[in-house]
Amino acid sequence: MRVSVIQLNARQDRQTNVQNALRLVDKAAEQGAQFVLLPECATFLGGYNQYTENSESVPGPTSEMMSAKARQKGIYINTGSLIERSSIPGRFYNTSLLVNPQGELIATYRKVHLFDINVPNQVTETESSVVLPGDKLVTVNLPGFCLGLSICFDLRFPELYRSLALAGAQVFVIPSAFAQATGQAHWHVLQRARAIENHAFVLAADQYGPDTEGHMCFGHSLIVDPWGVVLAEAPSEGEAVLVVDIDLDQVSQRREQIAVLKIRRPDAYSRIENL
Amino acid sequence: MRVSVIQLNARQDRQTNVQNALRLVDKAAEQGAQFVLLPECATFLGGYNQYTENSESVPGPTSEMMSAKARQKGIYINTGSLIERSSIPGRFYNTSLLVNPQGELIATYRKVHLFDINVPNQVTETESSVVLPGDKLVTVNLPGFCLGLSICFDLRFPELYRSLALAGAQVFVIPSAFAQATGQAHWHVLQRARAIENHAFVLAADQYGPDTEGHMCFGHSLIVDPWGVVLAEAPSEGEAVLVVDIDLDQVSQRREQIAVLKIRRPDAYSRIENL
Repeated sequence: MRVSVIQLNARQDRQTNVQNALRLVDKAAEQGAQFVLLPECATFLGGYNQYTENSESVPGPTSEMMSAKARQKGIYINTGSLIERSSIPGRFYNTSLLVNPQGELIATYRKVHLFDINVPNQVTETESSVVLPGDKLVTVNLPGFCLGLSICFDLRFPELYRSLALAGAQVFVIPSAFAQATGQAHWHVLQRARAIENHAFVLAADQYGPDTEGHMCFGHSLIVDPWGVVLAEAPSEGEAVLVVDIDLDQVSQRREQIAVLKIRRPDAYSRIENL
Repeated sequence: MRVSVIQLNARQDRQTNVQNALRLVDKAAEQGAQFVLLPECATFLGGYNQYTENSESVPGPTSEMMSAKARQKGIYINTGSLIERSSIPGRFYNTSLLVNPQGELIATYRKVHLFDINVPNQVTETESSVVLPGDKLVTVNLPGFCLGLSICFDLRFPELYRSLALAGAQVFVIPSAFAQATGQAHWHVLQRARAIENHAFVLAADQYGPDTEGHMCFGHSLIVDPWGVVLAEAPSEGEAVLVVDIDLDQVSQRREQIAVLKIRRPDAYSRIENL
């Protein structure tokens, strides 16, 4: 299975962003990638006050362009995320789409953990001021493996990845626009931990550079194997197209060697002695 | 709060091991430590076929020596772990004890995840062949902070630490005899992840060097802060007495900056769409 993780720097202009993304998807397909992951907010990265004019319906223009590209190249594309309109004016979802090689939209995941953070002088965001949280997790059975979907800030919640693994996921996608300051402190550790503790592959496509609000993204897009080994990593700056052959048998091998999903003790977790 | 994490190499002789441990506790107390953590199996590290003769009751000789030392120095001692007798001949618990400055045994935690692992040519163990699992988690309210107990292989289970944090734990103790091969691959990442994802301090006392069966332990005992920063680390080899002042206000500060314990979505984790 040849997978690709794309790093880019999206800004305000959706048309330019989508053209850039499709250009990089072409590069991945030229290298034989069968599954391509784009970052969070790949089609628009800007201020919350610009969300109304840059939001879309699903299906909509972005999903249709991604579907056409997937069909043209005969590949899976995970669109990272876009700003999806909700039924409430001024409220949106942060939504990741998966299209198959026939161009069909086969999965939709809405970010469940919103990016509310206040690290003084480093990062302050309140995504929940305009974005509504999703209400469910999503796994997708693809030929040869089961995919578990997530987005960026979800990374801080190990229970999400454990739930996906217990539901069968062998590969996690984590499209991101991770803040530089918290990325330096946490990105590699948490990405590798999710791989190790579930013995799953992790594909993490990140944005790099500044958005239009001046926030810096961390870059360092990653592909991690089920033992926690970094198979590929992008630099902190610049577009990147990581392409790696992943051996899905490693997931079952590692899960036999250390059977974490069987050894876990849900009975004990809820029985706590507070002394 | 001044805490100490002790690294040592226990072998078969319990009396020697306990004397070594108490000598290192003295060193920690001399440096002003108020809370001292010993590694897993601090009083006996050997083959399963030697467990019967090296197991103890609780209270018993080890807990009494630790109690006497805690009282003498006026400190808390977490004994790491010992081989506790169960009511079934030939079956034991891997048990961690906490004694207070009055010498009272105030908490007992029996390891809930047993070390069953088969990484060919690296590590093969079946702790469950002789050890019975504990059936509950344990937190302890001490003056100024709440402690969450765990042992070694528990480290691979983020749900245990999340449960402890939700029950109030601000400091995790992880006494270990971590295998060298898996330690090189996973130790730092997982210890730091547990700190970051819960914004808790992690105290990880590890054994170093070979046990009597020829298994190598990893060393690299750690103290990690709630942002994932390594405050102190022992080398791969040799006894060590890490002593660090930890600022417990950092836990509440970080949990306000990124309110992971509030933002988590138990409703969504159990609602999974399998496509």
